[in-house]
Amino acid sequence: MRLKIDYNNMMRHALGDEEGLDFNEFEEHKELLELAYSKVMDNKGKGWQEWTALPFTQQEVIKDILDTAQKYADYDNVVVFGIGGSALGTIAVANALLHLKHNELPKSVRKSPRLYVEDNIDPERMRALLDIIDVKKTVFNVITKSGTTSETLAQFMIIQDILKRQLGEKAKDNIIIITTMGKGTLYDIAVKEGYKVFGIGGGVGGRFSVFSPVGLVPLALVGIDIKALLDGAREMSEACFAPDFAQNPALCTAFLQYMSMRRGKSISVMMPYADSLKYMADFYCQLWGESLGKAIDNNNNLVNVGQTPVKALGVTDQHSQIQLYTEGPYDKVVTFLAVENFRNTVQMPTLDASETEFLQNKTLNELINCERLATEYALTKAKRPNFTIILPEVNAHTIGELLQYFMYQTAYCGALLDINTYNQPGVEEGKQATFAMMGRKNYENKLEEIKSIQKDERFIIKNQKLL
Amino acid sequence: MRLKIDYNNMMRHALGDEEGLDFNEFEEHKELLELAYSKVMDNKGKGWQEWTALPFTQQEVIKDILDTAQKYADYDNVVVFGIGGSALGTIAVANALLHLKHNELPKSVRKSPRLYVEDNIDPERMRALLDIIDVKKTVFNVITKSGTTSETLAQFMIIQDILKRQLGEKAKDNIIIITTMGKGTLYDIAVKEGYKVFGIGGGVGGRFSVFSPVGLVPLALVGIDIKALLDGAREMSEACFAPDFAQNPALCTAFLQYMSMRRGKSISVMMPYADSLKYMADFYCQLWGESLGKAIDNNNNLVNVGQTPVKALGVTDQHSQIQLYTEGPYDKVVTFLAVENFRNTVQMPTLDASETEFLQNKTLNELINCERLATEYALTKAKRPNFTIILPEVNAHTIGELLQYFMYQTAYCGALLDINTYNQPGVEEGKQATFAMMGRKNYENKLEEIKSIQKDERFIIKNQKLL
Repeated sequence: MRLKIDYNNMMRHALGDEEGLDFNEFEEHKELLELAYSKVMDNKGKGWQEWTALPFTQQEVIKDILDTAQKYADYDNVVVFGIGGSALGTIAVANALLHLKHNELPKSVRKSPRLYVEDNIDPERMRALLDIIDVKKTVFNVITKSGTTSETLAQFMIIQDILKRQLGEKAKDNIIIITTMGKGTLYDIAVKEGYKVFGIGGGVGGRFSVFSPVGLVPLALVGIDIKALLDGAREMSEACFAPDFAQNPALCTAFLQYMSMRRGKSISVMMPYADSLKYMADFYCQLWGESLGKAIDNNNNLVNVGQTPVKALGVTDQHSQIQLYTEGPYDKVVTFLAVENFRNTVQMPTLDASETEFLQNKTLNELINCERLATEYALTKAKRPNFTIILPEVNAHTIGELLQYFMYQTAYCGALLDINTYNQPGVEEGKQATFAMMGRKNYENKLEEIKSIQKDERFIIKNQKLL
Repeated sequence: MRLKIDYNNMMRHALGDEEGLDFNEFEEHKELLELAYSKVMDNKGKGWQEWTALPFTQQEVIKDILDTAQKYADYDNVVVFGIGGSALGTIAVANALLHLKHNELPKSVRKSPRLYVEDNIDPERMRALLDIIDVKKTVFNVITKSGTTSETLAQFMIIQDILKRQLGEKAKDNIIIITTMGKGTLYDIAVKEGYKVFGIGGGVGGRFSVFSPVGLVPLALVGIDIKALLDGAREMSEACFAPDFAQNPALCTAFLQYMSMRRGKSISVMMPYADSLKYMADFYCQLWGESLGKAIDNNNNLVNVGQTPVKALGVTDQHSQIQLYTEGPYDKVVTFLAVENFRNTVQMPTLDASETEFLQNKTLNELINCERLATEYALTKAKRPNFTIILPEVNAHTIGELLQYFMYQTAYCGALLDINTYNQPGVEEGKQATFAMMGRKNYENKLEEIKSIQKDERFIIKNQKLL
């Protein structure tokens, strides 16, 4: 693997006895670690761990994806309609690997379509999108594993209608569906209308689907090297098979987080020091939050576990969150994402002002990395546990590694916590309530229940009179 | 005020005895509330509370700002160089009030310059910006209260150099400085070079500066109605003077958060249900995190207080964070931002697919608001405290109200916690370390200290061998 992980600042020698972890804890929890290790390793490619197989298979699918991307290379725009796991991987990778202002570059420079990942149903956002794209020159990538996600169906209905009105029969060339083959509303519509469809394996959960067509199709459509991405994922997979737990990147850091949770570190901050990695934090936040935030464990004990993931961005959030991280409650572990070599260098000139002397003829590259090391130093000095994932450079290979690392880390941490990493029962109640309020059939009782809730007017502040 | 705040779901009748707050607690803590109230009220406009006066004064400054904006109306781009409080207000307001794809609209439609708020020093980001703008048609708004912020000075040095090379003497027309008058490196340079300068009052802290020229200048430059913004701020100010604490929007919700913190709610989630309000969460996160995250109280007791602010976006994060919020630890208070009337309506068409029947002929407007209410319902049912701030519509007036509400809420909460709301001592160590590593004079000892830290190679994972 090309990534490097430095967890010195989780340990006693850096943080002191009270806040630091002891290296012996790996030995003391050997049994637990072995159990978690075998739980993940013995089920590679099976059940909900189908995601672990993705970087190793899919040769045929990849050929199909690349052929499809070729066909759409001249389109102006790629629009993804999808939400949660159907959007976050694409956003994270595209932001890392495309020019940071890709959509604003002239076509001759960007050489691939613009990309819009529309993961919300705000009417103002839909209108804004339609204001700036020519739908006739846009391929819409509609992604929902179940084929029934309300938000994605709503977006699909709107755009299909517009396309048909503008393009008639030809509308079907502008839609690509990614869903479970042979199942769900969207699949049925796709077959009827003759849309191109890519499948998602039944055992690939949304938040673990970035290396399935869910991520690969839109990323290939904007020209990203998906083969190199998968190379990286494969290489990281193999590193995550290492039986030396203290040197297994995913199991080791999962264990550090697990031990930290047990010591009251209820918050996991993900803080990349690179704008290109900003949305890696969003990817991590979904994966970590939705996978590990669970009410019951595998033995049905009520546990209400889960670290709350928080996204931050270096150096920006030094001017927003570091005050709290340094002086507030001792309830956080901070993960830094570091980049050794940026893809370009920007130098500060000389200037006749003595206060700026330390900046003159230095580079922004030096400044951002010094600030990262300084923040790491300051947090450690304040006894706040932190570790750093170092990318030698941001490229398709290292990004593939990073995503796969996040997924294995989550899988191992779920195994350590002995919970179901792959379900999300907590979102059901809200879905039902939405159906009820939208007037869906068979939800009349739920609607009654919701309507029966009484609001106390004392607890509503409005029309506050002026003095 | 036009905003409405519904805090039913913080109370016992909604959450039950264990998780809910009792209305009597306002009475029981009357003394504390009165103290906090008078601490804020008695110092309006004084010391670090100079921000409270901003919406009521500044007539002359506003004239100057509007005249300046007029002068730059034909420029292609406004670029803000600033970080933390010098950026977040502008980002939040601009995102709320400009078209959601403002920068991608043709000039004839957007009618004002594009806006880029550059609040990081990533070299790839700086390069990307320079790739898409013509600096000759760009006004650079350089903002640092102290006039010495390293990141902003670095950006300034780079752009001044480029401008001078491209425009020579005329470069000065493309730079506007906002800093403390008569103080700091940047002020000195501005005077020497003849740049236009706007001042920031000495008692206006960065995170409370959105209604000073820090926010007003860039916002006016892109055509936002700053007078209406200030109207809203004034109206909310007066609501926040209300002596009936349970009906004072800022003091009431500050108290609810304060009581929640005392009961272990260490996390404050800000979850707007509107893309236009997405960056209001970032504004809030800085304000709440940096103001309330403090090691010591006003009596020098070690307290390590502070709720960790978390940003989320509805409905998007229902597919990312709601699982955790519903089933994970009971450690959160969720604040929803709701919009009653969006600025446009998007309707779903009919479709021959029974599964989509509940969506047909409905609007995205209904769907997003039903999902918000459904999430509120589901969280409340799971006994997770939450309250909702309702904007009748997103416009300059309501945004002015919202920002001012956030600032008063923070001021009151700091008073309840009896801490210094306005300092940030926790960021000093990192600043010093950055100076040291960048080779600044007089930081040699700090550099020695940093260099003396030993890394244990056992705690670095690299070159993981493949199996």
